[in-house]
Amino acid sequence: MVSIILSHPQMGENIGTAARAMLNFGLTDLRLVSPRDGWPNDRAITTAAGAFDQMQNVQVFDNFSDAIADCHYVFATTARARDMVKPVYSPSDAVTETKKRKAEKQNVAIAFGAERTGLLNEEICQCQAILTFPVNPDFASLNLGQAVLVMAYEYMKSTHETPDPSLNISENPPAPQREIDSFLTRLEADLENKRFFRSEGLKPTMIRNIKNIFTRADITDQEVRTLHGILSALRGNKTK
Amino acid sequence: MVSIILSHPQMGENIGTAARAMLNFGLTDLRLVSPRDGWPNDRAITTAAGAFDQMQNVQVFDNFSDAIADCHYVFATTARARDMVKPVYSPSDAVTETKKRKAEKQNVAIAFGAERTGLLNEEICQCQAILTFPVNPDFASLNLGQAVLVMAYEYMKSTHETPDPSLNISENPPAPQREIDSFLTRLEADLENKRFFRSEGLKPTMIRNIKNIFTRADITDQEVRTLHGILSALRGNKTK
Repeated sequence: MVSIILSHPQMGENIGTAARAMLNFGLTDLRLVSPRDGWPNDRAITTAAGAFDQMQNVQVFDNFSDAIADCHYVFATTARARDMVKPVYSPSDAVTETKKRKAEKQNVAIAFGAERTGLLNEEICQCQAILTFPVNPDFASLNLGQAVLVMAYEYMKSTHETPDPSLNISENPPAPQREIDSFLTRLEADLENKRFFRSEGLKPTMIRNIKNIFTRADITDQEVRTLHGILSALRGNKTK
Repeated sequence: MVSIILSHPQMGENIGTAARAMLNFGLTDLRLVSPRDGWPNDRAITTAAGAFDQMQNVQVFDNFSDAIADCHYVFATTARARDMVKPVYSPSDAVTETKKRKAEKQNVAIAFGAERTGLLNEEICQCQAILTFPVNPDFASLNLGQAVLVMAYEYMKSTHETPDPSLNISENPPAPQREIDSFLTRLEADLENKRFFRSEGLKPTMIRNIKNIFTRADITDQEVRTLHGILSALRGNKTK
């Protein structure tokens, strides 16, 4: 688990939004350094949408040094890489680095500064690395809650199995090919009856095109039955 | 560019937050299907923090079908994979698929449903794929703006060069080893003078430990000068 530190946050709303973003993606250790409007804060509780109930107790510190005292590695989030000699990480690289250090039992934190000013230089000095977000240079208005959300999301992503695009399909397995073929044979006969194939020369190509449509779609058993029903309905007054 | 569709959004604030999230990460095509409180909406403009000024004109449609009419592939975002036979994508996999289709000149959109209900089943039916977020199962309260933010971030990330962690360091290259050695030699002499090395037997190990500290830190020329200054200062009243 990575700790999230908000240093000198101004608006309670943003603390709440950050907490909600954290818990959405499974982070529960929030630390505040000298929040402007004190703590606890009613506006934070409102915007957190119940997140605080499921998180660890929020720890409040007088200064940044105390907040990171038990941390081995702290990322300072900044809008630009400032003129400091520190490695600069993207959110996903920071998560990779965090995981590596967590495996070595290190405490890792990600620190965010005040809404208006960001982290102070003397706070960044105490961090081991800088973390920047790949924002649109013409509209870099990522707020505190959004920045925390991106980090929490990246962290969750790294621990979460990626859904398999075929997941839903395998719960509803495609029909065996013979079912599709049987439907296509019926369809072809009906189309023949309706003089759909205007020339014998074009017919093989037209049939192939039709087969491709129905073969590509991973049709399930139920759907094959539906298609048969459609065909019967369209056949209308013809005897079966 | 991928289009973002908000179907039946309820609160103007959320439309604005979504727009801000989009533009932060470079997305500019927002489409609304029948927004509850009409359009334009003052609350949306407030929370967008100026984003609408830099985006394409927001398009408003009466129904979902019209909103996706020019799209070749649409992702339906849902909280859970519903009982529909469609491939299920994670945000990053959806971006990979989107890029592939954009390269083939396809229009791709990501659709989000109303805050309370999500996309309607008849809307999901019209989409080619399902997109789910890897949220904390015990607190899945991702709101509309947050969900849009995650997708926009993933999209930007895929087009953005990852910062090289060594970037800042290479602008301030580490000092050549002889500079470090010269400092360490001076330090060692001073420590010797101060009887820091309590036993000759331990001295080599202690020196090695000290060297490791200063060697590991990628110290720059400027920092070496600073260290010399520190040493001179600490040496204090001793003649140089």
